[in-house]
Amino acid sequence: MLGNFTYYNPTKLFFGENALDSLGPELDNYGKKVLLTYGGGSIKKTGLYDKIIAILRERGKEVVEVSGVMPNPTIEKVYEGSRIARENDVDLILAVGGGSVSDYSKAVSVSAWCDEDPWERFYWRMEAVENRVIPVGVVLTMVGTGSEMNSGSVITHTEKKLKIGRVFDDDVIPKFAVLNPKLTFTLPKKQMVGGIYDIMSHINEQYFSGTDDNTSDYIMEGLMHSLINSSRAALKNPEDYEARSNIMWTATWALNSLVEKGKTTDWMVHMFGQSVGAYTDETHGHTLSAVTLPYYRYILPYGLAKFKRFAENVWGVDPAGKTDEQVAEEGLQAMGSWMEELGMAMNLRELGVTEDMLPGIARGVYILEGGYKVLNKDEVMEILKRSM
Amino acid sequence: MLGNFTYYNPTKLFFGENALDSLGPELDNYGKKVLLTYGGGSIKKTGLYDKIIAILRERGKEVVEVSGVMPNPTIEKVYEGSRIARENDVDLILAVGGGSVSDYSKAVSVSAWCDEDPWERFYWRMEAVENRVIPVGVVLTMVGTGSEMNSGSVITHTEKKLKIGRVFDDDVIPKFAVLNPKLTFTLPKKQMVGGIYDIMSHINEQYFSGTDDNTSDYIMEGLMHSLINSSRAALKNPEDYEARSNIMWTATWALNSLVEKGKTTDWMVHMFGQSVGAYTDETHGHTLSAVTLPYYRYILPYGLAKFKRFAENVWGVDPAGKTDEQVAEEGLQAMGSWMEELGMAMNLRELGVTEDMLPGIARGVYILEGGYKVLNKDEVMEILKRSM
Repeated sequence: MLGNFTYYNPTKLFFGENALDSLGPELDNYGKKVLLTYGGGSIKKTGLYDKIIAILRERGKEVVEVSGVMPNPTIEKVYEGSRIARENDVDLILAVGGGSVSDYSKAVSVSAWCDEDPWERFYWRMEAVENRVIPVGVVLTMVGTGSEMNSGSVITHTEKKLKIGRVFDDDVIPKFAVLNPKLTFTLPKKQMVGGIYDIMSHINEQYFSGTDDNTSDYIMEGLMHSLINSSRAALKNPEDYEARSNIMWTATWALNSLVEKGKTTDWMVHMFGQSVGAYTDETHGHTLSAVTLPYYRYILPYGLAKFKRFAENVWGVDPAGKTDEQVAEEGLQAMGSWMEELGMAMNLRELGVTEDMLPGIARGVYILEGGYKVLNKDEVMEILKRSM
Repeated sequence: MLGNFTYYNPTKLFFGENALDSLGPELDNYGKKVLLTYGGGSIKKTGLYDKIIAILRERGKEVVEVSGVMPNPTIEKVYEGSRIARENDVDLILAVGGGSVSDYSKAVSVSAWCDEDPWERFYWRMEAVENRVIPVGVVLTMVGTGSEMNSGSVITHTEKKLKIGRVFDDDVIPKFAVLNPKLTFTLPKKQMVGGIYDIMSHINEQYFSGTDDNTSDYIMEGLMHSLINSSRAALKNPEDYEARSNIMWTATWALNSLVEKGKTTDWMVHMFGQSVGAYTDETHGHTLSAVTLPYYRYILPYGLAKFKRFAENVWGVDPAGKTDEQVAEEGLQAMGSWMEELGMAMNLRELGVTEDMLPGIARGVYILEGGYKVLNKDEVMEILKRSM
């Protein structure tokens, strides 16, 4: 725990199969006008939409809606939601869905009362929010992004083929989140495993950085153990409540800022994945898995000790009679086998990426510091080629 | 993660060697009158008192003080602080010290505006707080109790020889805490190891309960790994900043409610320790260590699988060719060796307990459910005898 930091995370989490019972009383803390945001309408099929509307009515709320929030929410959609939020002067944005709907709602919460173009101000120039921010609450139906307890928001500019993630200030963190693991039972397998892998990648990207002895790394090893065990149980039986609840809880704690405290992080896999996502519109988790092993194998020599620790502490690799390099490589192989068990995309071709897209994807990869090797543009291209 | 629960923990944590720089700006969020609470005056010797007074003056605060808060704060002392807080109508209680000063300040925060006897109402009858609660902030100089980020408060009734812990509602959780690991460097060794062992006991007491597969247990295994490693580094060099900072951070997360979420817990070791504490006034951590191994050995047959997991996952015991009982016992032996390394009290005699005190101590042990075996009064006495 080196360095100085502030930890402040006031999201109220209502967890469990009865979590929705807490929504009504919580809604009483906000004004009358609510903007309900959701995706493609699966919540209407499952009956969740009707339940939430009933709760909102019971609490005397006036409801306006934005539906059709897409997996990679676009700035055009943010303009639409912001206009509706402002015209109706809403007191609360209630996001019902997964990370995309939550990210989208945070974008609307800061954009509605912004007098400039929010894409330019918040996502491109990364300037501070000085206007009024509308509170956000979340009812989670998909897990992975941890967006329900952080201030992050990833938005795509379709025309510019840019997908940019922004971490806002504390006032953008959702005020509350309803986490009912049973709401995730109906997710198609591809989205379930995409979410599980997204969680693993969040942990990896905070774990594979630094050489200090750090409580955060030990917490992450615990979270990874839990995730790996529960993911295998959920693969066998998607309605295993215990497994799905562990996965849901792990997702929140993997990305609510706790495990990055006092340490460095390396978010390059997300930088690769986001650029791939702007070209393929593929589920986020699969854009990450397709580049993960080539990236980590490339930087492994620069962070050998940590990759060795990962192999031993997370995957139980026995180091006896092996070189450090062999132990480290066996750890990545064990993770690779688990990714295949899940059915993750293991290369970019599976996502429909063709050779001619690579230069464009490479240009869209924002290079961050914090990793064991700060990449140059040639290395970005090399890793993309190895991911094909 | 079975069952339903709410997680809400809005304490703002300022961490690091410059953490005190955040105190001034944070104080601006509160009114003008501040009650400063602290212990025996070591903060005057170290210069911390002067620094804090300077910050308070700089921010225009009017300061009243309660000094001499003792290691096991008494209700008589709470009456004194409550009177001062009420007469001066203070806007904030600023606790400077360890868990005792923090627990004490929370007791004053709920008692100042209570028109009944707060001992009777809050600690004996365990009734809700309905009166005004004064906000509390903490500058931590000792670690262990996690009191800086929870709503717990342990108060002793000297005359009745009762030491009772109470968990209040969310509004009693400190609003902020300043955590500078360097402030813990000057602690005498006995208090340092007492704090370290208290942390371990907090984790044990939440870990040794339940048979489900639970993310919280995995997080605790991570915290225990970090604590064991860092405690050994701190024993070698008490000014090892990395080690002391990991210990400080682990202490907070071991008892801020995160790791108990979605699982059962067994706080019997604390029940034993608190009753011993009322008879010996010994440092809290040592009252726990003296009863730990006899208690866990007594309940081991009822929770064998978890004790075996503890041995393997936390202490690296190799199970090959051993019975489950042997593996489990080796885990407790490994923990015992580590306790001896720390220099913890290993039995009650070391604390000055004599045979004739045992019936009284036994009567003061509040029997809780949640453990692998719910004790009866005879078993409490038996465990106390085995702890001599």
